[in-house]
Amino acid sequence: MGPRKTTTRERLITTAAELFRRQGYAQTGVNQIIQEANATSGSFYHFFPAKEDLLMAVVDHIAEVFEVEIFASAAERSDEPIEELFAILDLYRQHLADGGFSFTSPMAGLSAEVSENHPQVRARMAEIFAAWTSRIERLLRDAGNRLAPTVDRAAVAALVVCSMEGAVLGVRLNRSLRPFDAVVDQLRNYVGFLESQTAAVAAGPVTRRAVRPIPSQRADWRSW
Amino acid sequence: MGPRKTTTRERLITTAAELFRRQGYAQTGVNQIIQEANATSGSFYHFFPAKEDLLMAVVDHIAEVFEVEIFASAAERSDEPIEELFAILDLYRQHLADGGFSFTSPMAGLSAEVSENHPQVRARMAEIFAAWTSRIERLLRDAGNRLAPTVDRAAVAALVVCSMEGAVLGVRLNRSLRPFDAVVDQLRNYVGFLESQTAAVAAGPVTRRAVRPIPSQRADWRSW
Repeated sequence: MGPRKTTTRERLITTAAELFRRQGYAQTGVNQIIQEANATSGSFYHFFPAKEDLLMAVVDHIAEVFEVEIFASAAERSDEPIEELFAILDLYRQHLADGGFSFTSPMAGLSAEVSENHPQVRARMAEIFAAWTSRIERLLRDAGNRLAPTVDRAAVAALVVCSMEGAVLGVRLNRSLRPFDAVVDQLRNYVGFLESQTAAVAAGPVTRRAVRPIPSQRADWRSW
Repeated sequence: MGPRKTTTRERLITTAAELFRRQGYAQTGVNQIIQEANATSGSFYHFFPAKEDLLMAVVDHIAEVFEVEIFASAAERSDEPIEELFAILDLYRQHLADGGFSFTSPMAGLSAEVSENHPQVRARMAEIFAAWTSRIERLLRDAGNRLAPTVDRAAVAALVVCSMEGAVLGVRLNRSLRPFDAVVDQLRNYVGFLESQTAAVAAGPVTRRAVRPIPSQRADWRSW
Protein backbone atom coordinates (compact mmCIF):
# COMPACT_ATOMS: atom_id res chain seq x y z
CA MET A 1 0.00 0.00 0.00
CA GLY A 2 1.43 3.35 -1.02
CA PRO A 3 0.92 6.56 0.88
CA ARG A 4 -2.15 7.35 -1.26
CA LYS A 5 -4.72 5.50 -3.32
CA THR A 6 -3.70 4.99 -6.93
CA THR A 7 -6.02 6.45 -9.52
CA THR A 8 -7.67 4.35 -12.21
CA ARG A 9 -5.49 6.06 -14.81
CA GLU A 10 -2.34 5.13 -12.88
CA ARG A 11 -3.50 1.52 -12.50
CA LEU A 12 -4.20 1.25 -16.21
CA ILE A 13 -0.72 2.57 -17.00
CA THR A 14 1.24 0.39 -14.57
CA THR A 15 -0.77 -2.70 -15.55
CA ALA A 16 -0.17 -2.00 -19.24
CA ALA A 17 3.53 -1.34 -18.64
CA GLU A 18 3.90 -4.78 -17.05
CA LEU A 19 1.86 -6.53 -19.75
CA PHE A 20 3.72 -4.80 -22.60
CA ARG A 21 6.98 -5.85 -20.99
CA ARG A 22 5.91 -9.47 -20.65
CA GLN A 23 3.90 -9.96 -23.85
CA GLY A 24 4.75 -7.05 -26.10
CA TYR A 25 2.47 -4.22 -27.16
CA ALA A 26 0.66 -5.86 -30.07
CA GLN A 27 -0.07 -9.05 -28.15
CA THR A 28 -1.69 -7.21 -25.28
CA GLY A 29 -5.39 -6.63 -25.74
CA VAL A 30 -7.26 -3.66 -24.29
CA ASN A 31 -9.69 -6.03 -22.54
CA GLN A 32 -6.89 -7.77 -20.67
CA ILE A 33 -5.54 -4.43 -19.47
CA ILE A 34 -8.98 -3.30 -18.33
CA GLN A 35 -9.59 -6.58 -16.50
CA GLU A 36 -6.21 -6.77 -14.76
CA ALA A 37 -6.33 -3.10 -13.79
CA ASN A 38 -9.80 -3.67 -12.34
CA ALA A 39 -11.16 -0.84 -14.47
CA THR A 40 -14.07 -0.37 -16.89
CA SER A 41 -13.93 0.10 -20.63
CA GLY A 42 -15.67 3.45 -20.09
CA SER A 43 -12.82 4.74 -17.95
CA PHE A 44 -10.22 3.23 -20.28
CA TYR A 45 -11.50 5.08 -23.34
CA HIS A 46 -12.03 8.20 -21.30
CA PHE A 47 -8.32 8.34 -20.48
CA PHE A 48 -7.00 6.71 -23.65
CA PRO A 49 -9.16 7.22 -26.75
CA ALA A 50 -6.73 5.01 -28.70
CA LYS A 51 -4.49 2.18 -27.56
CA GLU A 52 -1.51 4.19 -28.82
CA ASP A 53 -2.37 6.94 -26.31
CA LEU A 54 -1.85 4.37 -23.58
CA LEU A 55 1.44 3.27 -25.14
CA MET A 56 2.66 6.86 -25.04
CA ALA A 57 1.57 7.17 -21.40
CA VAL A 58 3.44 3.94 -20.58
CA VAL A 59 6.63 5.25 -22.17
CA ASP A 60 6.31 8.49 -20.19
CA HIS A 61 5.58 6.54 -17.02
CA ILE A 62 8.68 4.37 -17.30
CA ALA A 63 10.77 7.47 -18.03
CA GLU A 64 9.35 9.08 -14.87
CA VAL A 65 10.15 6.02 -12.78
CA PHE A 66 13.71 6.19 -14.08
CA GLU A 67 13.85 9.89 -13.36
CA VAL A 68 12.92 9.38 -9.72
CA GLU A 69 14.49 6.02 -8.90
CA ILE A 70 17.70 6.35 -10.86
CA PHE A 71 18.59 9.90 -11.82
CA ALA A 72 17.22 11.81 -8.81
CA SER A 73 18.38 9.10 -6.43
CA ALA A 74 21.91 9.18 -7.89
CA ALA A 75 22.03 12.96 -7.50
CA GLU A 76 20.99 12.63 -3.85
CA ARG A 77 23.62 10.12 -2.93
CA SER A 78 26.53 11.86 -4.69
CA ASP A 79 28.13 15.24 -4.31
CA GLU A 80 30.47 15.03 -7.25
CA PRO A 81 29.58 14.62 -10.95
CA ILE A 82 31.72 11.61 -11.89
CA GLU A 83 30.59 9.83 -8.75
CA GLU A 84 26.98 10.64 -9.69
CA LEU A 85 27.49 9.16 -13.15
CA PHE A 86 28.60 5.86 -11.67
CA ALA A 87 25.83 6.01 -9.08
CA ILE A 88 23.39 6.11 -12.02
CA LEU A 89 24.98 2.97 -13.43
CA ASP A 90 24.90 1.34 -10.01
CA LEU A 91 21.21 2.11 -9.51
CA TYR A 92 20.48 0.86 -13.01
CA ARG A 93 22.27 -2.36 -12.07
CA GLN A 94 20.06 -2.61 -9.00
CA HIS A 95 16.98 -2.39 -11.22
CA LEU A 96 18.32 -5.18 -13.38
CA ALA A 97 18.96 -7.35 -10.33
CA ASP A 98 15.53 -6.59 -8.84
CA GLY A 99 13.82 -7.43 -12.12
CA GLY A 100 15.19 -10.96 -12.14
CA PHE A 101 17.05 -10.33 -15.41
CA SER A 102 13.82 -9.82 -17.33
CA PHE A 103 13.98 -6.08 -16.92
CA THR A 104 13.79 -4.04 -20.08
CA SER A 105 14.46 -0.37 -20.37
CA PRO A 106 11.58 1.77 -21.67
CA MET A 107 13.47 2.08 -24.92
CA ALA A 108 15.14 -1.27 -25.52
CA GLY A 109 12.06 -3.28 -24.68
CA LEU A 110 9.42 -1.51 -26.72
CA SER A 111 11.49 0.18 -29.41
CA ALA A 112 12.04 -2.92 -31.52
CA GLU A 113 8.33 -3.51 -31.69
CA VAL A 114 6.96 -0.01 -32.01
CA SER A 115 9.61 2.18 -33.59
CA GLU A 116 8.59 1.37 -37.16
CA ASN A 117 4.81 1.40 -36.80
CA HIS A 118 4.35 4.17 -34.24
CA PRO A 119 6.40 7.19 -35.34
CA GLN A 120 5.08 9.43 -32.54
CA VAL A 121 6.07 6.92 -29.89
CA ARG A 122 9.45 6.45 -31.56
CA ALA A 123 9.96 10.22 -31.47
CA ARG A 124 9.09 10.29 -27.77
CA MET A 125 11.53 7.45 -27.07
CA ALA A 126 14.20 9.31 -29.02
CA GLU A 127 13.56 12.33 -26.77
CA ILE A 128 14.03 10.18 -23.67
CA PHE A 129 17.21 8.69 -25.12
CA ALA A 130 18.47 12.21 -25.84
CA ALA A 131 17.49 13.41 -22.35
CA TRP A 132 19.43 10.57 -20.72
CA THR A 133 22.44 11.28 -22.89
CA SER A 134 22.26 15.02 -22.11
CA ARG A 135 22.07 14.23 -18.45
CA ILE A 136 25.27 12.19 -18.57
CA GLU A 137 26.88 14.83 -20.76
CA ARG A 138 26.03 17.53 -18.22
CA LEU A 139 27.66 15.51 -15.45
CA LEU A 140 30.78 15.22 -17.59
CA ARG A 141 30.71 18.99 -18.16
CA ASP A 142 30.18 19.60 -14.44
CA ALA A 143 33.31 17.54 -13.83
CA GLY A 144 35.13 20.61 -15.11
CA ASN A 145 38.85 20.27 -15.34
CA ARG A 146 38.83 16.84 -13.78
CA LEU A 147 38.56 15.93 -17.48
CA ALA A 148 40.65 17.64 -20.14
CA PRO A 149 38.83 20.35 -22.11
CA THR A 150 39.46 18.35 -25.28
CA VAL A 151 37.30 15.45 -24.05
CA ASP A 152 34.19 15.19 -26.23
CA ARG A 153 31.62 15.08 -23.43
CA ALA A 154 28.69 14.38 -25.77
CA ALA A 155 30.43 11.39 -27.36
CA VAL A 156 31.51 9.96 -23.99
CA ALA A 157 27.89 10.33 -22.84
CA ALA A 158 26.71 8.45 -25.94
CA LEU A 159 29.15 5.65 -25.11
CA VAL A 160 27.85 5.48 -21.54
CA VAL A 161 24.17 5.37 -22.51
CA CYS A 162 24.63 2.98 -25.46
CA SER A 163 26.83 0.55 -23.55
CA MET A 164 24.38 0.65 -20.64
CA GLU A 165 21.48 -0.17 -22.96
CA GLY A 166 23.43 -2.89 -24.74
CA ALA A 167 24.43 -4.36 -21.40
CA VAL A 168 20.74 -4.69 -20.51
CA LEU A 169 20.40 -6.94 -23.54
CA GLY A 170 23.43 -8.97 -22.45
CA VAL A 171 22.00 -9.37 -18.96
CA ARG A 172 18.61 -10.47 -20.25
CA LEU A 173 20.09 -13.03 -22.64
CA ASN A 174 22.67 -14.38 -20.20
CA ARG A 175 20.53 -14.17 -17.06
CA SER A 176 23.59 -12.79 -15.36
CA LEU A 177 24.81 -9.34 -14.35
CA ARG A 178 28.30 -10.09 -15.63
CA PRO A 179 27.98 -8.22 -18.96
CA PHE A 180 26.76 -5.14 -17.10
CA ASP A 181 29.56 -5.34 -14.54
CA ALA A 182 32.17 -5.74 -17.27
CA VAL A 183 30.83 -2.67 -19.05
CA VAL A 184 30.83 -0.52 -15.91
CA ASP A 185 34.32 -1.72 -15.07
CA GLN A 186 35.58 -0.64 -18.49
CA LEU A 187 33.74 2.68 -18.35
CA ARG A 188 35.43 3.37 -15.02
CA ASN A 189 38.74 2.49 -16.58
CA TYR A 190 38.06 4.79 -19.54
CA VAL A 191 37.01 7.70 -17.37
CA GLY A 192 40.14 7.01 -15.31
CA PHE A 193 42.21 7.40 -18.47
CA LEU A 194 40.40 10.63 -19.33
CA GLU A 195 41.20 11.92 -15.84
CA SER A 196 44.82 10.77 -15.85
CA GLN A 197 45.25 12.54 -19.17
CA THR A 198 44.44 15.79 -17.39
CA ALA A 199 46.77 14.88 -14.53
CA ALA A 200 49.54 14.10 -17.00
CA VAL A 201 49.02 17.44 -18.71
CA ALA A 202 49.13 19.21 -15.35
CA ALA A 203 52.25 17.29 -14.32
CA GLY A 204 54.30 17.95 -17.41
CA PRO A 205 54.74 17.41 -21.11
CA VAL A 206 53.67 13.78 -21.46
CA THR A 207 51.18 14.31 -24.29
CA ARG A 208 52.23 16.06 -27.43
CA ARG A 209 49.23 18.33 -27.56
CA ALA A 210 49.55 21.43 -25.39
CA VAL A 211 46.54 21.57 -23.09
CA ARG A 212 46.44 24.15 -20.35
CA PRO A 213 44.59 22.93 -17.27
CA ILE A 214 41.71 25.10 -16.12
CA PRO A 215 41.92 26.08 -12.42
CA SER A 216 39.75 23.82 -10.28
CA GLN A 217 36.33 25.25 -9.45
CA ARG A 218 35.53 22.68 -6.81
CA ALA A 219 37.66 21.47 -3.95
CA ASP A 220 35.70 18.35 -3.21
CA TRP A 221 36.77 16.06 -6.06
CA ARG A 222 36.83 12.59 -4.73
CA SER A 223 38.34 9.61 -6.40
CA TRP A 224 36.10 6.55 -6.71
CA MET B 1 19.11 -13.13 -58.63
CA GLY B 2 21.74 -15.05 -56.74
CA PRO B 3 24.18 -17.47 -58.28
CA ARG B 4 21.86 -20.39 -57.44
CA LYS B 5 18.17 -20.99 -56.92
CA THR B 6 17.08 -20.56 -53.32
CA THR B 7 15.42 -23.53 -51.70
CA THR B 8 11.92 -23.39 -50.23
CA ARG B 9 13.42 -23.72 -46.76
CA GLU B 10 15.68 -20.71 -47.39
CA ARG B 11 12.78 -18.66 -48.74
CA LEU B 12 10.69 -19.45 -45.69
CA ILE B 13 13.53 -18.37 -43.40
CA THR B 14 14.41 -15.11 -45.16
CA THR B 15 10.72 -14.19 -45.52
CA ALA B 16 10.11 -14.90 -41.84
CA ALA B 17 13.24 -12.97 -40.82
CA GLU B 18 11.94 -9.89 -42.62
CA LEU B 19 8.39 -10.26 -41.27
CA PHE B 20 9.59 -10.83 -37.69
CA ARG B 21 11.74 -7.73 -38.00
CA ARG B 22 8.87 -5.59 -39.27
CA GLN B 23 5.97 -6.98 -37.25
CA GLY B 24 7.49 -9.00 -34.44
CA TYR B 25 7.33 -12.75 -33.96
CA ALA B 26 3.95 -13.07 -32.26
CA GLN B 27 2.21 -10.82 -34.78
CA THR B 28 3.41 -12.79 -37.77
CA GLY B 29 1.11 -15.66 -38.72
CA VAL B 30 2.32 -18.86 -40.32
CA ASN B 31 -0.08 -18.34 -43.22
CA GLN B 32 1.41 -14.96 -44.07
CA ILE B 33 4.91 -16.47 -44.12
CA ILE B 34 3.78 -19.33 -46.37
CA GLN B 35 2.03 -16.94 -48.73
CA GLU B 36 4.85 -14.38 -49.00
CA ALA B 37 7.47 -17.12 -49.38
CA ASN B 38 5.37 -18.65 -52.16
CA ALA B 39 5.41 -22.00 -50.36
CA THR B 40 2.82 -24.55 -49.24
CA SER B 41 1.73 -25.39 -45.74
CA GLY B 42 2.90 -28.95 -46.39
CA SER B 43 6.46 -27.80 -47.03
CA PHE B 44 6.32 -25.37 -44.10
CA TYR B 45 5.41 -28.03 -41.56
CA HIS B 46 7.83 -30.45 -43.16
CA PHE B 47 10.71 -28.10 -42.40
CA PHE B 48 9.30 -26.49 -39.27
CA PRO B 49 6.97 -28.71 -37.23
CA ALA B 50 6.41 -25.80 -34.83
CA LYS B 51 6.56 -22.06 -35.40
CA GLU B 52 9.30 -21.91 -32.77
CA ASP B 53 11.49 -24.14 -34.98
CA LEU B 54 11.29 -21.45 -37.62
CA LEU B 55 12.17 -18.78 -35.06
CA MET B 56 15.28 -20.72 -34.13
CA ALA B 57 16.20 -21.10 -37.82
CA VAL B 58 15.74 -17.33 -38.31
CA VAL B 59 18.04 -16.56 -35.39
CA ASP B 60 20.66 -18.92 -36.83
CA HIS B 61 20.20 -17.42 -40.28
CA ILE B 62 20.80 -13.87 -39.12
CA ALA B 63 23.85 -15.02 -37.16
CA GLU B 64 25.17 -16.66 -40.35
CA VAL B 65 24.60 -13.52 -42.37
CA PHE B 66 26.57 -11.60 -39.75
CA GLU B 67 29.27 -14.21 -39.79
CA VAL B 68 29.78 -13.85 -43.55
CA GLU B 69 29.02 -10.19 -44.17
CA ILE B 70 30.59 -8.71 -41.06
CA PHE B 71 33.05 -10.98 -39.31
CA ALA B 72 34.53 -12.86 -42.29
CA SER B 73 34.55 -9.71 -44.38
CA ALA B 74 36.36 -7.76 -41.66
CA ALA B 75 38.98 -10.51 -41.40
CA GLU B 76 39.53 -10.35 -45.16
CA ARG B 77 40.06 -6.64 -45.31
CA SER B 78 42.40 -6.42 -42.30
CA ASP B 79 45.75 -7.95 -41.53
CA GLU B 80 45.99 -6.73 -37.97
CA PRO B 81 43.70 -7.54 -35.03
CA ILE B 82 42.86 -4.04 -33.78
CA GLU B 83 42.23 -2.93 -37.33
CA GLU B 84 39.95 -5.95 -37.78
CA LEU B 85 37.99 -5.01 -34.67
CA PHE B 86 37.24 -1.57 -36.07
CA ALA B 87 36.51 -3.07 -39.50
CA ILE B 88 33.77 -5.11 -37.79
CA LEU B 89 32.29 -1.92 -36.35
CA ASP B 90 32.59 -0.22 -39.72
CA LEU B 91 30.80 -3.06 -41.54
CA TYR B 92 28.13 -3.09 -38.84
CA ARG B 93 27.69 0.63 -39.46
CA GLN B 94 27.26 -0.10 -43.16
CA HIS B 95 24.48 -2.56 -42.34
CA LEU B 96 22.75 0.09 -40.27
CA ALA B 97 23.03 2.60 -43.11
CA ASP B 98 21.80 0.08 -45.71
CA GLY B 99 18.83 -0.87 -43.53
CA GLY B 100 17.50 2.68 -43.51
CA PHE B 101 17.83 2.90 -39.72
CA SER B 102 15.26 0.18 -39.18
CA PHE B 103 17.90 -2.50 -38.91
CA THR B 104 17.79 -4.67 -35.83
CA SER B 105 20.43 -7.10 -34.76
CA PRO B 106 19.38 -10.75 -34.39
CA MET B 107 19.54 -10.26 -30.66
CA ALA B 108 18.32 -6.75 -29.98
CA GLY B 109 15.32 -7.04 -32.26
CA LEU B 110 13.84 -10.34 -31.18
CA SER B 111 15.22 -10.71 -27.69
CA ALA B 112 12.81 -8.34 -25.98
CA GLU B 113 9.88 -10.24 -27.43
CA VAL B 114 11.03 -13.83 -27.14
CA SER B 115 13.55 -14.05 -24.32
CA GLU B 116 10.95 -14.63 -21.62
CA ASN B 117 8.60 -16.98 -23.43
CA HIS B 118 11.06 -18.99 -25.53
CA PRO B 119 13.88 -20.16 -23.27
CA GLN B 120 15.52 -22.28 -25.98
CA VAL B 121 15.66 -19.33 -28.35
CA ARG B 122 16.96 -17.10 -25.59
CA ALA B 123 19.70 -19.63 -24.88
CA ARG B 124 20.63 -19.68 -28.58
CA MET B 125 20.75 -15.88 -28.67
CA ALA B 126 22.93 -15.92 -25.57
CA GLU B 127 25.31 -18.27 -27.40
CA ILE B 128 25.49 -15.87 -30.34
CA PHE B 129 26.09 -12.95 -27.99
CA ALA B 130 28.86 -14.94 -26.31
CA ALA B 131 30.35 -15.94 -29.68
CA TRP B 132 30.50 -12.32 -30.81
CA THR B 133 32.11 -11.28 -27.54
CA SER B 134 34.65 -14.14 -27.76
CA ARG B 135 35.49 -13.11 -31.27
CA ILE B 136 36.29 -9.55 -30.20
CA GLU B 137 38.14 -10.87 -27.17
CA ARG B 138 40.30 -13.08 -29.42
CA LEU B 139 41.20 -10.10 -31.56
CA LEU B 140 42.26 -8.23 -28.44
CA ARG B 141 44.35 -11.24 -27.40
CA ASP B 142 45.84 -11.47 -30.88
CA ALA B 143 46.87 -7.85 -30.49
CA GLY B 144 49.51 -9.24 -28.15
CA ASN B 145 51.73 -6.67 -26.55
CA ARG B 146 50.15 -3.83 -28.46
CA LEU B 147 47.94 -3.87 -25.36
CA ALA B 148 49.35 -4.28 -21.85
CA PRO B 149 49.04 -7.80 -20.42
CA THR B 150 46.97 -6.35 -17.59
CA VAL B 151 44.18 -5.29 -19.96
CA ASP B 152 41.07 -7.37 -19.27
CA ARG B 153 40.37 -8.47 -22.85
CA ALA B 154 37.05 -10.14 -21.99
CA ALA B 155 35.72 -7.01 -20.31
CA VAL B 156 36.86 -4.73 -23.15
CA ALA B 157 35.14 -7.12 -25.58
CA ALA B 158 31.94 -6.89 -23.52
CA LEU B 159 32.13 -3.10 -23.72
CA VAL B 160 32.58 -3.24 -27.51
CA VAL B 161 29.66 -5.64 -28.10
CA CYS B 162 27.31 -3.96 -25.61
CA SER B 163 28.00 -0.45 -26.84
CA MET B 164 27.56 -1.63 -30.45
CA GLU B 165 24.19 -3.18 -29.60
CA GLY B 166 23.09 -0.15 -27.62
CA ALA B 167 24.14 2.11 -30.47
CA VAL B 168 21.82 0.16 -32.79
CA LEU B 169 18.99 1.19 -30.51
CA GLY B 170 20.16 4.81 -30.61
CA VAL B 171 20.33 4.74 -34.40
CA ARG B 172 16.86 3.24 -34.72
CA LEU B 173 15.29 5.76 -32.37
CA ASN B 174 17.13 8.78 -33.75
CA ARG B 175 17.09 7.75 -37.42
CA SER B 176 20.66 8.90 -37.52
CA LEU B 177 24.05 7.19 -37.43
CA ARG B 178 25.38 9.77 -34.99
CA PRO B 179 25.04 7.65 -31.83
CA PHE B 180 26.90 4.82 -33.53
CA ASP B 181 29.66 7.10 -34.77
CA ALA B 182 30.08 8.67 -31.32
CA VAL B 183 30.42 5.21 -29.78
CA VAL B 184 33.01 4.04 -32.31
CA ASP B 185 34.91 7.28 -31.85
CA GLN B 186 35.07 6.74 -28.10
CA LEU B 187 36.00 3.06 -28.45
CA ARG B 188 38.90 4.11 -30.70
CA ASN B 189 39.93 6.63 -28.09
CA TYR B 190 39.74 4.01 -25.33
CA VAL B 191 41.75 1.45 -27.28
CA GLY B 192 44.20 4.23 -28.02
CA PHE B 193 44.59 4.79 -24.28
CA LEU B 194 45.08 1.07 -23.72
CA GLU B 195 47.79 1.12 -26.38
CA SER B 196 49.48 4.25 -25.11
CA GLN B 197 49.58 2.68 -21.67
CA THR B 198 51.80 -0.04 -23.12
CA ALA B 199 53.91 2.55 -24.92
CA ALA B 200 54.33 4.47 -21.67
CA VAL B 201 55.40 1.31 -19.87
CA ALA B 202 57.88 0.50 -22.62
CA ALA B 203 59.21 4.08 -22.58
CA GLY B 204 59.84 4.32 -18.87
CA PRO B 205 58.43 4.31 -15.36
CA VAL B 206 55.22 6.27 -15.86
CA THR B 207 52.87 3.78 -14.21
CA ARG B 208 53.59 2.45 -10.79
CA ARG B 209 52.95 -1.17 -11.68
CA ALA B 210 55.94 -2.88 -13.31
CA VAL B 211 54.74 -4.42 -16.58
CA ARG B 212 57.29 -6.02 -18.83
CA PRO B 213 56.33 -5.77 -22.48
CA ILE B 214 56.08 -9.09 -24.30
CA PRO B 215 58.25 -9.24 -27.46
CA SER B 216 56.17 -8.58 -30.56
CA GLN B 217 55.11 -11.70 -32.43
CA ARG B 218 53.99 -9.84 -35.53
CA ALA B 219 55.92 -7.23 -37.44
CA ASP B 220 52.98 -5.78 -39.32
CA TRP B 221 51.23 -3.77 -36.62
CA ARG B 222 49.65 -0.82 -38.26
CA SER B 223 48.20 2.14 -36.52
CA TRP B 224 44.69 3.11 -37.54
